[in-house]
Amino acid sequence: MEKMLPKTGKYEFMAEPFHCDFSNRLFMGHLGNAMLNAADFHSNDRGYGMSYLNGLHKTWVLSRLAIEMEEMPAAYDRFSVETWVESAMKFFTSRNFAVTGPDGRTLGYGRSIWAMIDTETRQPVDLLAVRDGLINAYVERDKACPISKPSRVRMDKEAPLVHSLDTYYNDIDVNGHVNSVKYIEHVLDLFDLSWYRSHRLRRFEIAYVAESHQGDRLHFYREQTGEDEYGVRITKGTDDEVEVVRSLIRFAKD
Amino acid sequence: MEKMLPKTGKYEFMAEPFHCDFSNRLFMGHLGNAMLNAADFHSNDRGYGMSYLNGLHKTWVLSRLAIEMEEMPAAYDRFSVETWVESAMKFFTSRNFAVTGPDGRTLGYGRSIWAMIDTETRQPVDLLAVRDGLINAYVERDKACPISKPSRVRMDKEAPLVHSLDTYYNDIDVNGHVNSVKYIEHVLDLFDLSWYRSHRLRRFEIAYVAESHQGDRLHFYREQTGEDEYGVRITKGTDDEVEVVRSLIRFAKD
Repeated sequence: MEKMLPKTGKYEFMAEPFHCDFSNRLFMGHLGNAMLNAADFHSNDRGYGMSYLNGLHKTWVLSRLAIEMEEMPAAYDRFSVETWVESAMKFFTSRNFAVTGPDGRTLGYGRSIWAMIDTETRQPVDLLAVRDGLINAYVERDKACPISKPSRVRMDKEAPLVHSLDTYYNDIDVNGHVNSVKYIEHVLDLFDLSWYRSHRLRRFEIAYVAESHQGDRLHFYREQTGEDEYGVRITKGTDDEVEVVRSLIRFAKD
Repeated sequence: MEKMLPKTGKYEFMAEPFHCDFSNRLFMGHLGNAMLNAADFHSNDRGYGMSYLNGLHKTWVLSRLAIEMEEMPAAYDRFSVETWVESAMKFFTSRNFAVTGPDGRTLGYGRSIWAMIDTETRQPVDLLAVRDGLINAYVERDKACPISKPSRVRMDKEAPLVHSLDTYYNDIDVNGHVNSVKYIEHVLDLFDLSWYRSHRLRRFEIAYVAESHQGDRLHFYREQTGEDEYGVRITKGTDDEVEVVRSLIRFAKD
């Protein structure tokens, strides 16, 4: 039995120079990756992470992620990601993140929703059944995460197709699926460099609806949903398109 | 004046789970990124890195990189990259790498060639003129790097076009160019998952010939140059194609 650790875990990362965009700020995809690492380290350290679940043929799957940043770490900045479990129910748990800069200033926050699945059936399982609901011992109710929860992104069925792409070797993770971070990159690639020169990414939301695999062709439908706000729906397939991801991107003018 | 440090620097990295491929081994692009980070840390620590050069409107540019691996780090492995300068001449310096696993075993090696350019004219400058040739004080002649030097990849002019792609926001680094690591990924994406299931990447070489920018359309020409060995030429442009990268990929059957 692991000994009890603090409810919140804090992990240090560096904004590596090749993980920064033209403006010398960390790419959102790499920040998302840091959050996923923090979640992984935090849950492994506490005995309900992927390492333990592997033996049970279970795993965590990310269902939703929302990130809202005041400022992105700059190249070479050491930044920290704090993470904690906000709630745990039978089929879903919510995990929050706070990102702080080298001077300890808060740069932004994240919220995520996870499910646990059986790796053979790919069906959801009761996450409270793992180690007698150990995760409940780590629920942190008192720590604030002052950004709104991931929303249900509404999009018109008629939103236009703006891009299609094929998926390749580098898109695929150890589960054989297109990696969660790659979707973030593909969505943000729908806006070009000149757009980013005058718009800063303020909030990014993504909901993972279904899995896709190497060779799947992805289709991107985009709709403006507010001032400097866009919804994106990704589908896979050719004749019979199936939705795999829905995303909401809110920019601020620089 | 920085105090003299050991000639070889050693930097620790982790094979992050989302930086690993379907086989749970680190992607070559992420290993290349770790080497570029090690080179950057090593030269910055010793006073002739990008941080110092920025103020002089000079920078390092990677000209060639060759990586040869016996084994790739597995997910969660902590691995080290040692790096040292093998030689320094007026317009080029060669820097080597050794990668060791968590148990101290050597996993593979890298070799690279760098030039220094003026960031305004984009022309090569005399790298020995920086700090009175300080880099010479760090040349390490006695450390072995038992892989062959980056070669001049010979390719037939008639090598067939196998793929074309557009470049986007996430491809572009702080210099406004397609990031060195992204080319590695794009080249390796020419082989699909089923190929990697039966072939392990043994040696990867890349020569950066010219720069490309967001919006450039890249064309990939591929030719088999030996048993399980392929040459790839990347060009940019439409009417008048210009070569930007040449690469050699050698696989071993698993």
